[in-house]
Amino acid sequence: MNGAGSLVKTMLASGVNVCFANPGTSEMHFVAALDDHPDLRCILCLFEGGTSAAADGYFRMKGEIAATLLHLAPGFGNAWANLHNARKAESAMLNIVGDHASYHLRYDSPLKGDVKGISETISQWTRVSGDAVSVASDGAAAITAARSKNGQIATLILPANTAWEEGSAPVTAAVPAVPHRPREDEIAAAAKSLCAPGAALVLGGRALFEPLSEVAGKIAAKSGCELLVDFLTPRVARGEGAVVIRPLKYVVEENVAALEGVRTMVLCGSGRPVSFFAYPGKPSVPEQADCQLIDLCPPEMDYEWTLHALSAALDSGGEVAARQVLDVPEVPSGPVTLDKLGQALGALLPQGAIVTDESVTSGRSFAQHTVGARGHDWLKSTGGAIGGGLPLAVGAAVACPKRKVVALTGDGSAMYTLQSLWTMARERLDVVTIVFANQTYQILHGELVNVGVEKAGRNATQMFDMMDPSLDWVALAQGHGVEGEKVETMEAFNAAFLKGIEMPGPYLIEVIC
Amino acid sequence: MNGAGSLVKTMLASGVNVCFANPGTSEMHFVAALDDHPDLRCILCLFEGGTSAAADGYFRMKGEIAATLLHLAPGFGNAWANLHNARKAESAMLNIVGDHASYHLRYDSPLKGDVKGISETISQWTRVSGDAVSVASDGAAAITAARSKNGQIATLILPANTAWEEGSAPVTAAVPAVPHRPREDEIAAAAKSLCAPGAALVLGGRALFEPLSEVAGKIAAKSGCELLVDFLTPRVARGEGAVVIRPLKYVVEENVAALEGVRTMVLCGSGRPVSFFAYPGKPSVPEQADCQLIDLCPPEMDYEWTLHALSAALDSGGEVAARQVLDVPEVPSGPVTLDKLGQALGALLPQGAIVTDESVTSGRSFAQHTVGARGHDWLKSTGGAIGGGLPLAVGAAVACPKRKVVALTGDGSAMYTLQSLWTMARERLDVVTIVFANQTYQILHGELVNVGVEKAGRNATQMFDMMDPSLDWVALAQGHGVEGEKVETMEAFNAAFLKGIEMPGPYLIEVIC
Repeated sequence: MNGAGSLVKTMLASGVNVCFANPGTSEMHFVAALDDHPDLRCILCLFEGGTSAAADGYFRMKGEIAATLLHLAPGFGNAWANLHNARKAESAMLNIVGDHASYHLRYDSPLKGDVKGISETISQWTRVSGDAVSVASDGAAAITAARSKNGQIATLILPANTAWEEGSAPVTAAVPAVPHRPREDEIAAAAKSLCAPGAALVLGGRALFEPLSEVAGKIAAKSGCELLVDFLTPRVARGEGAVVIRPLKYVVEENVAALEGVRTMVLCGSGRPVSFFAYPGKPSVPEQADCQLIDLCPPEMDYEWTLHALSAALDSGGEVAARQVLDVPEVPSGPVTLDKLGQALGALLPQGAIVTDESVTSGRSFAQHTVGARGHDWLKSTGGAIGGGLPLAVGAAVACPKRKVVALTGDGSAMYTLQSLWTMARERLDVVTIVFANQTYQILHGELVNVGVEKAGRNATQMFDMMDPSLDWVALAQGHGVEGEKVETMEAFNAAFLKGIEMPGPYLIEVIC
Repeated sequence: MNGAGSLVKTMLASGVNVCFANPGTSEMHFVAALDDHPDLRCILCLFEGGTSAAADGYFRMKGEIAATLLHLAPGFGNAWANLHNARKAESAMLNIVGDHASYHLRYDSPLKGDVKGISETISQWTRVSGDAVSVASDGAAAITAARSKNGQIATLILPANTAWEEGSAPVTAAVPAVPHRPREDEIAAAAKSLCAPGAALVLGGRALFEPLSEVAGKIAAKSGCELLVDFLTPRVARGEGAVVIRPLKYVVEENVAALEGVRTMVLCGSGRPVSFFAYPGKPSVPEQADCQLIDLCPPEMDYEWTLHALSAALDSGGEVAARQVLDVPEVPSGPVTLDKLGQALGALLPQGAIVTDESVTSGRSFAQHTVGARGHDWLKSTGGAIGGGLPLAVGAAVACPKRKVVALTGDGSAMYTLQSLWTMARERLDVVTIVFANQTYQILHGELVNVGVEKAGRNATQMFDMMDPSLDWVALAQGHGVEGEKVETMEAFNAAFLKGIEMPGPYLIEVIC
């Protein structure tokens, strides 16, 4: 068995059985090894940015790592932006990156690049396999690293000869070490703080959906604190039956207002809420200057244990968590507005839907209109790197084949990774993609005003607008093998959305708005 | 004048007047400053991979640097693969990357990332502006660095507050230092070696087109040496009137055969020819073991001076360089074959065409069929990172608005940066894009055989083939605002190609092959 074979067997023995792939020549032995193991499902993305976001979406929904297969440093570079989103989501994944044979690296061949260097700018764990007999144990170590600290990006670089030379027997990945935990006195102090007026428990990670959200809900019921979640969440359970958790917003001033009455924030599984950008004269953080911040349990620590410990300290096990009741809006009609689109989603989202949201400015009101929708999960582009939305939907759909995925995207965002449409068609994924076609980077018009410019001039307009020519999303979808339609009224949108929900496989709706 | 304004004025004062851009919020003050200077032409790419390849293509054809405008670390990540191609081409460019305000960087906001770290994995020069008054001099230093050593990637990172706070007066970039030169005794020894039997002068950079190619041609005429060029060249003049330079190939064995009679290679402006990949049992370098290698002048040294010095040492100024005569193939007809497509290009390429070539396996025979075509320039994806071809054509067309650009691309390659089609339409660029639609990563089928696998199995097929569904390139072009057609016979191809050559603006031809 060569090194590549030992790695494939190590992955399968360790429970890694999906690989989002863009292989090249340096990965050929790995590909040949995959051919011997059809139980490792290989999904082709036509661009590496699709692989990393798909693995991210897969982890968020499945709680298990997927692999990516990337081709040397440029392949890793193409995956970088969505690795950034994944890292901010605390998603775990295993990147396998082929490199030149170690003895070939002394020459400056065209594809030679700093694979290790670029990996270390974003992965929490990077290793270059030194020889074929180490590949299996390196792979197992990478899988363990990926699963550590609630989720990490682990990158294993395989010089081609380590794949083709004789390897060792496969290795099953060790169970990762338990993440660090707060001290008991910190738990007690935090529990006490949560009982004071104006206290909020800021949640992240798996605490945003069952079963941990119920634990948090009971803590809130007992202590009287509020549950908060930052704006860009990897995944939050929403709609009917979901534990009530108040979300923060994108706009600095709105968050300042939202936190006006908050005197204490206890962070558990969440970083400190921070303004997305700094602006001249605006604050970098939204809370009041005298708000007490208790950084109890950062995302990489054991927030599952911590929540249970808080619950025990408060004796909240017998409480009943506040839950959202079903409260769907009327189905709207007439001309399209963004508010009406939000209402339509609130009215029509099916039970169990998974929403991937990169709607940017178009979706600013969607949270309010969908709060009482049928139960669903909502996933955002956590790192703010645009181009995460469509491939995130790919990964979520692979993870949950029985649930409908709804991908909300701005037209500017969707252009970054539109190749994902093809993978949706290839894999017959149940994804309804909704492109909000305002033909502009609308957010930049707003940001220009934020920096004090009243009106965009010629160069700004050239860089902000995507008119002249207009993108034709129905043609783009068709080009990728995905059926779609363009809608210009709410009646047409509602009908198209229901069609997309009911049909198997992917569908795309271009909404002129 | 704020820092951003001082930078824009510094760029214009230093001769940088084109910017391929994907701005975001952290670049808003720079965008506002650009609005005050419409003489700096801003060209929107809908994905950052387009900006870096376009700046690369611009430099290769114009010999001047263009800027890119990128949004934080993820924007730089998206540009990375084509920065790799540009670096391997020794192309110069100025990347301007916005980052968070320096005082905001202490917080872990969503878009915070290691901008400096990722830049340093590919740029030869990176600097983070420390304050607004330094921005102008930093910009000038970046431009000088980009122009140094025949061409470098220079990246200037601007924390947002350095753009909006009060800056200094603009600074004109200093002329770069003269690159290092070989010693006179090295010139004399190399000149002597070139006169020996089996000698070859291996050229790169500007030595591959006029006026330096003529100097090289005269050296060859006088010394009896052969002129060689490596497979992936940034730009080479070909066709009628071009100095005769023999190109190496992609396949290892073919290059071994090609260099069998070569006893001495003198490198001038070129790295050492190297096999693209290592394969078990195949050599990493193509020359015979006893071939003498004289690394006279690597690409970052002064190969212009070196060529003239060699010419002087040989007293070759009065010689006549061997030049290619016009020798166009018959216009082919009937069913499409790759050879016939090469012949059609050889027959129909217009005088002065610029060909950007990412045709990968489809184009293996094109060099032989176009050698006697009308005079043209040929540009390749120098770093082997796929996705360079279409945006390289964008940059070349912006640099040379009076010349026709022909972008040859495989379907797999074109999917990486298909957004470039929109920029072609937006800027009315005279580009004929030819997509060789074999619906597969054909090169990988060959590479699998190279590693010893006879036939691709299920997983390999899933990762190599782009059938099921087929991509519809005419629809994809239409979606981006570009007219196109699909051809299945040579007659149809010839007619479509002539139509594309004659019409202004972009045109796309999908060739089923």
